[in-house]
Amino acid sequence: MRYELYYWPSIQGRGEFVRLALEDADTNYDDVARQPKGMAAMMRMMEGQAVERPPFAPPFLKAGKLIIAQTANILCYLGPRLDLVLKNESSRLWAHQLQLTIADWVAEMHDTHHPISGSLYYEEQKKEARKRAADFTSERMPKFLDYFEKILRRNGKGGGYLLGKKAGYVDLSLFQMVEGLRYAFPRAMKRLEPKHSRTVDLHDRVAARPRLARYLDSPRRIPFNQDGIFRHYPELDR
Amino acid sequence: MRYELYYWPSIQGRGEFVRLALEDADTNYDDVARQPKGMAAMMRMMEGQAVERPPFAPPFLKAGKLIIAQTANILCYLGPRLDLVLKNESSRLWAHQLQLTIADWVAEMHDTHHPISGSLYYEEQKKEARKRAADFTSERMPKFLDYFEKILRRNGKGGGYLLGKKAGYVDLSLFQMVEGLRYAFPRAMKRLEPKHSRTVDLHDRVAARPRLARYLDSPRRIPFNQDGIFRHYPELDR
Repeated sequence: MRYELYYWPSIQGRGEFVRLALEDADTNYDDVARQPKGMAAMMRMMEGQAVERPPFAPPFLKAGKLIIAQTANILCYLGPRLDLVLKNESSRLWAHQLQLTIADWVAEMHDTHHPISGSLYYEEQKKEARKRAADFTSERMPKFLDYFEKILRRNGKGGGYLLGKKAGYVDLSLFQMVEGLRYAFPRAMKRLEPKHSRTVDLHDRVAARPRLARYLDSPRRIPFNQDGIFRHYPELDR
Repeated sequence: MRYELYYWPSIQGRGEFVRLALEDADTNYDDVARQPKGMAAMMRMMEGQAVERPPFAPPFLKAGKLIIAQTANILCYLGPRLDLVLKNESSRLWAHQLQLTIADWVAEMHDTHHPISGSLYYEEQKKEARKRAADFTSERMPKFLDYFEKILRRNGKGGGYLLGKKAGYVDLSLFQMVEGLRYAFPRAMKRLEPKHSRTVDLHDRVAARPRLARYLDSPRRIPFNQDGIFRHYPELDR
C-alpha cells in the first residue's frame, strides 16, 4: 500500500512529524498537497460532501480506505507498521502518551506567536506574543525539556532512546522539537541545552541516521520559515 | 481489575472525560486524589524516583501495572474494555481522532482565561483573555460545533451518535463540551445552539442515560467552578 500524506505544502508544521517517520522507514508515499492539483485534492477530502469521516484539519493520512487525522493518531497507526514502535500494547500506549505530550508542546509553541487568534497576523498580536513567549521560554520549555530528559534517563534499556533499545517515532519527534526550538528560540536553547545533554545526544543520533540524514539534506525537507509552527522572531527570544 | 484514576480533586477538568466513561460503564474505580492521602499518592506517581514511566501531568489511570496518561490515550485504552467503542481498528482510530479534536478544543477553551501563562492568575491576564475569548466565541466555538454537527449528520448508522449506532466515549465527551461551554459562555451558546440541533440532541440523550444521570446527580460529580477548565467570567462572554 502506498500512503498518501495530506498537509499544507509550504511549511513543515505538524505534517513534518509524520514525514520524519515515513522517511526514516524508507516508505513510499505521496506528499499530495505538494503535487500539482494537490491542494484541491486536500480541500476536497476535508470539505467534500461525499467524505463520511472528514478530518477537522491537516495533517491526515490516506491508507487504503482509511483516512486518519491528528498527528499523534497517524503515528500511532504507522508506528507498528513502520517498525518504529514495539508491537506490545504497553509500548504502544507509552509511545503514544509521549507523542501526545509532544503535541501539547507543539500547540504551546504555536501560541507563542499566535496567543490571541490564529486568524490574525503575528503583527496584530505582537505585544501579547512577547508575554506568552517569555512564559514559554522561561517556564514551559524547561518543563518539557526536563521531562523528556528524565524519561531518557529512566529508560533502563540502554541506547539512549525514549523507550526500548532503538529509535522509534517518538525519538524522531523529539529530534524535530530540538530542531524547531533551535530555529525559533536559539538564545533560549543555548541556555537550556547544557542541562539536557541526553536530549541533545538523542537529537544528534537521530540526525545521523542515514535515511533521515539523506531526507534532511533533500528538497523534500521544507526549510523552517515564518509561516510554520516554529518561527524565529528575535524579539520573542530574550 | 479495579481502575485507579488520578486527577486534581477539586475540579472536573480533563479528568472528567475519563470519569464520564467509567461512570457510564458502571465501572468500579478509585478516584484516588479525592481520597485521604490521595494527593500525596498522585504526586508520588508523578515525581517519585521509582516510577519508570511517569506522566507529564494528570489525569492518568492505573490499570494493573500500566500507568496511562493523556486523556485521549486513557479513553483509547478504556474504550473497547468498557464497550464504549467498536473493537475494529477503523472505529477505534476514528473515535480517537474525534477525541483528539475535542482535546484541542479543551486546550483552546482553557486558554480563553489563560492566554499568556498557566502560572499567572486570570486577573493578571484579563485584558488578553478578553481578546482571546472573543476569538474563541466568534471563530473557534462555531468551527468546532459546525464540525461535530457535520459528523453527526454524516454518520449513516442512525441513532444520532458520532459513530456507529450507539453512544460511545466520544459522545460522552461531546456532552461534556456542551455542558462546559454552557457554563462558561452561556450567551455564546444561546446564540449557537439553534444552529447545532444534532449536537444539542446528543447532549440531551447522553444526559438521560440512567447511569450517567445518576452520576451527574451524585456528589461524585464536582460542580463547575472558577478553578477548572470551563470557567464563567461574564466579561469574556459577550
